[in-house]
Amino acid sequence: MAKQEDIFKNVVSHAKEYGFIFPSSEVYDGLSAVYDYAQNGVELKKNIREYWWKSMVQMNENIVGLDAAILMHPTTWKASGHVDAFNDPLIDNKDSKKRYRADTLVEDYCKKLEDKAKKEIDKAKARFGDAFNEEEFVTTNARVVEYLGKKKEILSRLAKGMTDDLQDVKALIEELGIADPETGSKNWTDVKQFNLMFGTKLGASAESAMDLYLRPETAQGIFVNFLNVQKSGRMKVPFGIAQTGKAFRNEIVARQFIFRMREFEQMEMQFFVRPGEEMKWYHHWKDTRLKWHLSLGLGKENYRFHDHEKLAHYANAAADIEFNFPFGFKELEGIHSRTDFDLKAHEKYSGRKLQYFDAELNENYVPYVVETSVGLDRMFLAVFATSLQEETLEDGSTRTVLKLPAVLAPTKAAVLPLVKKDGLPEVSRKIIEDLKWDFNVAYDEKDAVGRRYRRQDALGTPFCITVDHQTLEDETVTIRHRDTMKQDRVKITELRGIIENEVSMKNWLMKM
Amino acid sequence: MAKQEDIFKNVVSHAKEYGFIFPSSEVYDGLSAVYDYAQNGVELKKNIREYWWKSMVQMNENIVGLDAAILMHPTTWKASGHVDAFNDPLIDNKDSKKRYRADTLVEDYCKKLEDKAKKEIDKAKARFGDAFNEEEFVTTNARVVEYLGKKKEILSRLAKGMTDDLQDVKALIEELGIADPETGSKNWTDVKQFNLMFGTKLGASAESAMDLYLRPETAQGIFVNFLNVQKSGRMKVPFGIAQTGKAFRNEIVARQFIFRMREFEQMEMQFFVRPGEEMKWYHHWKDTRLKWHLSLGLGKENYRFHDHEKLAHYANAAADIEFNFPFGFKELEGIHSRTDFDLKAHEKYSGRKLQYFDAELNENYVPYVVETSVGLDRMFLAVFATSLQEETLEDGSTRTVLKLPAVLAPTKAAVLPLVKKDGLPEVSRKIIEDLKWDFNVAYDEKDAVGRRYRRQDALGTPFCITVDHQTLEDETVTIRHRDTMKQDRVKITELRGIIENEVSMKNWLMKM
Repeated sequence: MAKQEDIFKNVVSHAKEYGFIFPSSEVYDGLSAVYDYAQNGVELKKNIREYWWKSMVQMNENIVGLDAAILMHPTTWKASGHVDAFNDPLIDNKDSKKRYRADTLVEDYCKKLEDKAKKEIDKAKARFGDAFNEEEFVTTNARVVEYLGKKKEILSRLAKGMTDDLQDVKALIEELGIADPETGSKNWTDVKQFNLMFGTKLGASAESAMDLYLRPETAQGIFVNFLNVQKSGRMKVPFGIAQTGKAFRNEIVARQFIFRMREFEQMEMQFFVRPGEEMKWYHHWKDTRLKWHLSLGLGKENYRFHDHEKLAHYANAAADIEFNFPFGFKELEGIHSRTDFDLKAHEKYSGRKLQYFDAELNENYVPYVVETSVGLDRMFLAVFATSLQEETLEDGSTRTVLKLPAVLAPTKAAVLPLVKKDGLPEVSRKIIEDLKWDFNVAYDEKDAVGRRYRRQDALGTPFCITVDHQTLEDETVTIRHRDTMKQDRVKITELRGIIENEVSMKNWLMKM
Repeated sequence: MAKQEDIFKNVVSHAKEYGFIFPSSEVYDGLSAVYDYAQNGVELKKNIREYWWKSMVQMNENIVGLDAAILMHPTTWKASGHVDAFNDPLIDNKDSKKRYRADTLVEDYCKKLEDKAKKEIDKAKARFGDAFNEEEFVTTNARVVEYLGKKKEILSRLAKGMTDDLQDVKALIEELGIADPETGSKNWTDVKQFNLMFGTKLGASAESAMDLYLRPETAQGIFVNFLNVQKSGRMKVPFGIAQTGKAFRNEIVARQFIFRMREFEQMEMQFFVRPGEEMKWYHHWKDTRLKWHLSLGLGKENYRFHDHEKLAHYANAAADIEFNFPFGFKELEGIHSRTDFDLKAHEKYSGRKLQYFDAELNENYVPYVVETSVGLDRMFLAVFATSLQEETLEDGSTRTVLKLPAVLAPTKAAVLPLVKKDGLPEVSRKIIEDLKWDFNVAYDEKDAVGRRYRRQDALGTPFCITVDHQTLEDETVTIRHRDTMKQDRVKITELRGIIENEVSMKNWLMKM
């Protein structure tokens, strides 16, 4: 565990030191759970977004894009259920004034029970060795049975309290003697539901203002535009609408760097299908989305599916693609079969029909929807954290290298004059002038060339191109590969082809 | 004037009918002054953004990107002056409950005086013909002198009232007898200042919440990150930081379609320079930005500079690039020499130094800033409205064609099988399979080919590729050029090169 934490700390500090991610408004001591993408981060983020967009919109004849506004008519969120049900149950400690999610406090208590049971199991395992039968042990050992039984009982009472009676959740916290984790105080307020949407007001005065929300998800922007897109684009079911954009959630306990932020970006595609065909498409999109992730080459072992047993009110099937983040496997993308819940809800609240006429079937219906929804910031974290590696080299020294998929790297090549004289800077700049139309190319002349290589490794630049005195004679340069550190002597005229081959989205998408 | 209005109406309806722009949340009757970019609009907008980004960031060694969050620490807006001074003077009509900008009411009154003067001038011009001396007439004709004199007097009193005494602005409105333009009522409230920032609250309860604002401009995100970018990127003055992103203004009277929206997107670059060198860079960026606009080929006559006489409190020089919109010349981009106002203000409010050490001069200083700021939505409107043309053809018929710069067109080519049989759809799709890796390509088999050409013209698609029976024999197709309607017979293998040549950003940027 300690090691995981160290890795994560290293990710955060590398992201700042090398210009990928800064805390927001850092001169004012930051704004909690909000981050800014710095000069290299913005390029990596742009490249991930574009890689998604190309694979979704450009490659699929029946998927089109959309860019709906963050501000929407407030009835949208009534229809979607967010006004009534997008809540967290919060409890305040009266002494410390700290605020917690009531369910998290109880779940953390249960986690401790589980840890105790695990300890007993580990002890027995050590004692009995190969002869140990874990299945039997957990059903017969008195302590383990007690711990796990109590855990099950508490969680079941919590679940009931969460839906039926928040006062019982408070009672549960008091009965279990749960204390403020930071101060130990047990002096709690009642549990209250708090809506996670950020509110704002449209219009200049209180009396005439309209209450708006910053959208908590991008999906509804697609649903309310469904018919306009279908008609103006003459789309035929099945078809999809894809969108990337910001969403906002007033999270109480936001943490884990850019994994859970108050302002974040989603990449969503809503696929409209015939009622009854949704399971076919649900499986299609589960497969397709996993293939997209795998095409980036971060390692098959870092992904797994998690099929939901408990479904949201709008879904009849749902799965997550989980990724092995520095803090364990967590949701990276969700694939949800949302039925006709959203379109029907908007029909109800708007009084308008949101139906599609299917000429083949000669019938009108509200399409079913299969959604794929990936967090752009989470994708960033997955790619960045996995790519950040410490390597021990043959000579025993270490190097930090950011092995980003070349297609996503912020800078594709750095051009380095071996020395700052003899016309080498001028030749380097001439090479840049030629390549910069096609790629992000950097120039670096500071420090010894070995240190410059290390710096470009840490930035994730796939290629270093070094201009030396031989270049002046035969128009060749050395090109160094980030991952292998291998250097080849090539003609300047070959550079474009070599780089293009490694970084083009086309070549990467073809791996899908 | 009527014609201009018709043109504008046509722009709005074409944008909706062909899937470029929809009113936001239209199923709920829309949200005033907020719009969604539809399936073709999102691509056009993306292309404009990318064209700007490439020219700014990728082409310039000393300009890097940034993507700061919309939510920032609230002190940011205290330092920038927005909390205290980002206001509109509003007045309500007590009878109609309608709300107006007080200064606009007075300015509209003055506009009428000007129109009256103009009418006198036009009458005299018609009477005297070539002998008419306008300069003399306006200084001698009693009526014209009165109208223009009164206008000048009112505007001067308005300006004084706006800064010193809002009650006198109300007095002015009453003295002039200005009535509610919609109802004729003269029953006015006092004039009050209203801040244009959207407010929201971070945190779940009123007592512990932090008051935040949705950023009203993207610039401050660059300023607060200035030192982090400079240090982590080892940037040397002069250097620039470029950013695109959403900003929000609670406009009271928002209108003119996407020209003035409550939620809009900016493309800004802040260029940090040595104090004293700002005028050199100010002129450099004025020139460079105009060249960028001209590279799109919308016509030199549609642009003009407007140098500000009255400067904002932070500026020592400022100019707009104005564009000839359907409603006249209006600001498209601003180039401002912002001095060290913003960085100094953030130093003051944060208590931190925001200084740069200039190794060549061996001194520390707060850099001066030259800003270029263009509205992405305004760029969209400029490009879209200018490209939308009605042409009369040789046979007397008319066609609607959207002559978008090919580099910005949402779809680069449409592939059309002449008929829906004999294997032509299959060949068409094979061509798409090959081209779609590099370009957005559409397929269309519905209706006669002539109608399909018209449809692609209206969508702004530069090329139509028609597959006919001859294609099956010799692997050739016809390629039709949107603007000239000229058709060439070419080999399928030549298509990529022909399209690439017309649409590549490289070729367009080279025109700068």
